Amino acid sequence: MSLQGYQRWLDTCNSGLKVQHLYHQLRIGSTPCGFIQPWLFQRLRRDFPSIFQVEQGDEQIESLALSDKLDTADKRSSALAGVLQELREDGALTGWRSESYPLLTSFHAEPLALVERAAAVHLGIKAYGVHVNGYVRGPSGIELWVATRSKNKPTWPGRLDHIVAGGQPHGLSPQENVIKECEEEASIPRELAQLAVPAGAVSYCSEQAEGLKRDVLFCYDLELPQDFVPEPQDGEVESFQRLPLKEVADTVARTDEFKDNCNLVIISFLVRHGFLKPELPGYLGIVSGLLSGDCS
Amino acid sequence: MSLQGYQRWLDTCNSGLKVQHLYHQLRIGSTPCGFIQPWLFQRLRRDFPSIFQVEQGDEQIESLALSDKLDTADKRSSALAGVLQELREDGALTGWRSESYPLLTSFHAEPLALVERAAAVHLGIKAYGVHVNGYVRGPSGIELWVATRSKNKPTWPGRLDHIVAGGQPHGLSPQENVIKECEEEASIPRELAQLAVPAGAVSYCSEQAEGLKRDVLFCYDLELPQDFVPEPQDGEVESFQRLPLKEVADTVARTDEFKDNCNLVIISFLVRHGFLKPELPGYLGIVSGLLSGDCS
Repeated sequence: MSLQGYQRWLDTCNSGLKVQHLYHQLRIGSTPCGFIQPWLFQRLRRDFPSIFQVEQGDEQIESLALSDKLDTADKRSSALAGVLQELREDGALTGWRSESYPLLTSFHAEPLALVERAAAVHLGIKAYGVHVNGYVRGPSGIELWVATRSKNKPTWPGRLDHIVAGGQPHGLSPQENVIKECEEEASIPRELAQLAVPAGAVSYCSEQAEGLKRDVLFCYDLELPQDFVPEPQDGEVESFQRLPLKEVADTVARTDEFKDNCNLVIISFLVRHGFLKPELPGYLGIVSGLLSGDCS
Repeated sequence: MSLQGYQRWLDTCNSGLKVQHLYHQLRIGSTPCGFIQPWLFQRLRRDFPSIFQVEQGDEQIESLALSDKLDTADKRSSALAGVLQELREDGALTGWRSESYPLLTSFHAEPLALVERAAAVHLGIKAYGVHVNGYVRGPSGIELWVATRSKNKPTWPGRLDHIVAGGQPHGLSPQENVIKECEEEASIPRELAQLAVPAGAVSYCSEQAEGLKRDVLFCYDLELPQDFVPEPQDGEVESFQRLPLKEVADTVARTDEFKDNCNLVIISFLVRHGFLKPELPGYLGIVSGLLSGDCS
């Protein structure tokens, strides 16, 4: 057994680490909080001089700082909302979701602003999510519930996914979010959902067309009863299937069927439950690679 | 609940990260593989010029490289054995254990040499170990078996320890090592020991009087039957006790009773089993901090 098929996902999901230094830092005061592509940097400095100021950055790439006059989270949120709305009207920002993400330097810090979720990657800000490995312990070992995403979903249509996963919106705790998403995505009742066990996190930094996706995903393990069957509820999931862990592991290692970041959370499950063993060359690279992104 | 009491152990066990740049690199060829304190650097360059050569290092601190003439692992092992023997006779190297540790740049790499275990910290080379959280799932939750180290042990006498833990010697796989140590330290039979589940690793770099302790510990979880009672066998353990996980957690958070590195492996257990929750400020610092050392 080789770990190469797993390592591939760590590399894919951390493509941004190699190019991060080519991006312009976004700062609030002296605090770096995001990364911006050159075209957007030029656009923002040119069109919004009262909101952004250019500063000398590290490694000779200029930084973009929010104006010092925007000295509260509310003022920053409102200024950024105006900017993003203009970008949206131009078509430079697509996939608008009308959902607020907090602009954070670390998870428990006070939000520096709230911004539309669709702009998180453009601004290269940190984003958080919850992913649930829903599993059953059967006589022949662990089986994992796997979702197939609806073919109509704008992102990752038709790809395999966790039974439940979701971005972490402002104002909800991770556990509350797990319970909400369990209900919405798989009709898992609250009494069951609240048994989900937080089991750590994975972090990564991937480069996408729009910018850097800098995510921390809280990993939950939810043991489900043998007779429980999840049901799609909100139209985001086409179907659910229950697969032996070995088959899920092979799918991760050998195919691109799972949505990219799900692979990391499944690998975390495989590590924590002893499916991957220290005897395998590359084991420690997998263990540490699951936290390649800024995990704070 | 605050995570400060846990974070303290991450800081303690990673005291070496802040001072590492003040050490002289030890190199074999162009490969950095250890760190040496200034007194030892001066001693080795002066007394063993045919074995070590001084090279320009990073950050203006000279490096010490093994002579190019020592072009096989056997030659390097033999040369280093002679050097360490002289240091031992001087009293500069104490705690000789007559146990070979491989000099590795990563766990699955070919050993560059074998060296006496007692010199691992003096040379600042990476060392590996296995730690086993032996637990019981009872009606009132998880209980952990905890050892009290013998008062006669040269290292950490009288401190609390895992039910089973040990350094990873050359020529044994981590699982074989777990099985061997289970038998030797706690009289756990092979049939039971081989059920230990590998669940990841912790890594750290602590500064000790003798140098840098750069360890990677493979973490195992071993669920034990309700009626199993471990028994001290090799005189290294004074007694065993079974404690509710909450009590163990409090002991980690509030006292110095556990041997330093055991705290990290217990914290890993607390994270993986959902005893620590993402809602607690500092959670992600704990999760990522468990891999602060070079985990390869």
